[in-house]
Amino acid sequence: MITAVAGGVGAARLLRGLVRVVPPEDVTAVVNTGDDTEVHGLHVSPDLDTVTYTLAGLNDDERGWGLAGETWAAMDALERLGGDTWFRLGDRDLATHLYRSERLRQGAALSTVTAEIAAALGVGARLLPVSDDPLRTHLTLAGGPEVTFQDYFVRRRHAVAVEAVRFSGADAARPGPGVLDALVRAELVVVCPSNPIVSVGPVLAVPGVRDALAARRDDVVAVSPIVAGAALKGPADRLMAELGHEPTVVGVARLYAAFAGTLVVDDADAALAARVEACDVRCVVAPTVMHTPADAAALAVRLLDAHRAPASPAAP
Amino acid sequence: MITAVAGGVGAARLLRGLVRVVPPEDVTAVVNTGDDTEVHGLHVSPDLDTVTYTLAGLNDDERGWGLAGETWAAMDALERLGGDTWFRLGDRDLATHLYRSERLRQGAALSTVTAEIAAALGVGARLLPVSDDPLRTHLTLAGGPEVTFQDYFVRRRHAVAVEAVRFSGADAARPGPGVLDALVRAELVVVCPSNPIVSVGPVLAVPGVRDALAARRDDVVAVSPIVAGAALKGPADRLMAELGHEPTVVGVARLYAAFAGTLVVDDADAALAARVEACDVRCVVAPTVMHTPADAAALAVRLLDAHRAPASPAAP
Repeated sequence: MITAVAGGVGAARLLRGLVRVVPPEDVTAVVNTGDDTEVHGLHVSPDLDTVTYTLAGLNDDERGWGLAGETWAAMDALERLGGDTWFRLGDRDLATHLYRSERLRQGAALSTVTAEIAAALGVGARLLPVSDDPLRTHLTLAGGPEVTFQDYFVRRRHAVAVEAVRFSGADAARPGPGVLDALVRAELVVVCPSNPIVSVGPVLAVPGVRDALAARRDDVVAVSPIVAGAALKGPADRLMAELGHEPTVVGVARLYAAFAGTLVVDDADAALAARVEACDVRCVVAPTVMHTPADAAALAVRLLDAHRAPASPAAP
Repeated sequence: MITAVAGGVGAARLLRGLVRVVPPEDVTAVVNTGDDTEVHGLHVSPDLDTVTYTLAGLNDDERGWGLAGETWAAMDALERLGGDTWFRLGDRDLATHLYRSERLRQGAALSTVTAEIAAALGVGARLLPVSDDPLRTHLTLAGGPEVTFQDYFVRRRHAVAVEAVRFSGADAARPGPGVLDALVRAELVVVCPSNPIVSVGPVLAVPGVRDALAARRDDVVAVSPIVAGAALKGPADRLMAELGHEPTVVGVARLYAAFAGTLVVDDADAALAARVEACDVRCVVAPTVMHTPADAAALAVRLLDAHRAPASPAAP
């Protein structure tokens, strides 16, 4: 049994690799909901959807989000009406939000709805929102206002400096059904190559999750989302620097050291392995950039091997 | 200035004719909202949309509802998720409901949102929901439960007998801004060829509307939606019969006699003119079936002529 802490695209790709090398039903993903938002009154869960669509083989790999073969008739018509269209909802994607929003209004928990959608789309892995309670990432822009995650990420295309991040609702949020159990019982816990600040951060902010991970430290293998000092996608490098963290695998190691015994870094960062290990984090060097599902499967194999290997292969 | 009492398709067609023969800005339509419903949490106003889309030239004439060139990606995807899809929302049509629902949530009145949508789509006529307050048509099925209008009309395809009709919310509903004024000030009030029970009925049920029409009786010209004993579209004939009304132009004349001085009936019903006039309703015989916009314009001219003609041309 493998449990993954997951954000969006990077996590989805790694999970797609994992379910190629272990039975999908042995994989549980605990997914960030800090990106969740209301758009036109619909409950949108971007990370859950990215993971679901990718594992269902329905995602648009090129665009990096949403569904392949998507159409945009609703957004085009909404634009004509003068409605807000900066958060683009594809026609097929809209169905997910219509379904989810209606089920939530009926009183279903987000975890229940997530399972329903995953089952309908043929996803074999178990997808768990980190919490059924509201959890919302807010960012204070440098010298400016506090904005929601999607305002920062989509509307402002994360092209603004940030001076603080807050996970609204985290203190009161309870881990969703099965979340702590999945972390406690897993043979291996993978922290996917997601943004440490705004993807992994909200998951850790739910009371109990960070402690559960820390208790499994020796079995927690993280994959660095930073490669050669840059995020493969999104603003992780800039966010880390803006918030005072070194935007390298060393910075990631420091952020994760309390709960991750192992950090997998890309070949490009081999020279930093000693600095990672100086954080008391075992460093595994491997190709981590997942251009194809085959790349992802190869990385998954390396994760499994890393976990099976002796605790400190770098030691003499 | 002409004010029309309007339901859905029949009204939309007549209005499309009217704005060909008088300046659109001289036409006000007071539109039924008893069909309004929540679908997947979205506020849908079928009659307002039918009238708006038709006057904007965007309607699907063949299907009889919705937008021309519509696509159904969202509904197809929703079906895959196991969501309810009996109320079909096209991708472009969804934009209207997303826009309307968001504006209503922001506190805008239905009348305001209706005007915004009409303006965005280039509709010159003024469209007024009969009320900004909730008004919902419910039907008691014969020997069965009470259902909402759309459950009866769409889900059950109005293929069930009805024993009672109720306009929920009508007692407390206030006429929308401009509604009574439009009825009082119009030179001519047209009651469109809409279902007398469930399209015109809810409009009349809003306190003040029926009295305002009755006060203008000499200037109220209704067009029968029943031709040769049958509704051109929908269940008007069956509903009338089930509720104890003769399903002919005579039944329509009796239902409208208190507030409509003139009833336009189709050539096919010329033989019933005397029975209509026996209800103390002037009967004008004309082609009323609007196959094309030109037919509608011709009917509109006949309405204007009927109103300008002496009060009782049938009298010696």
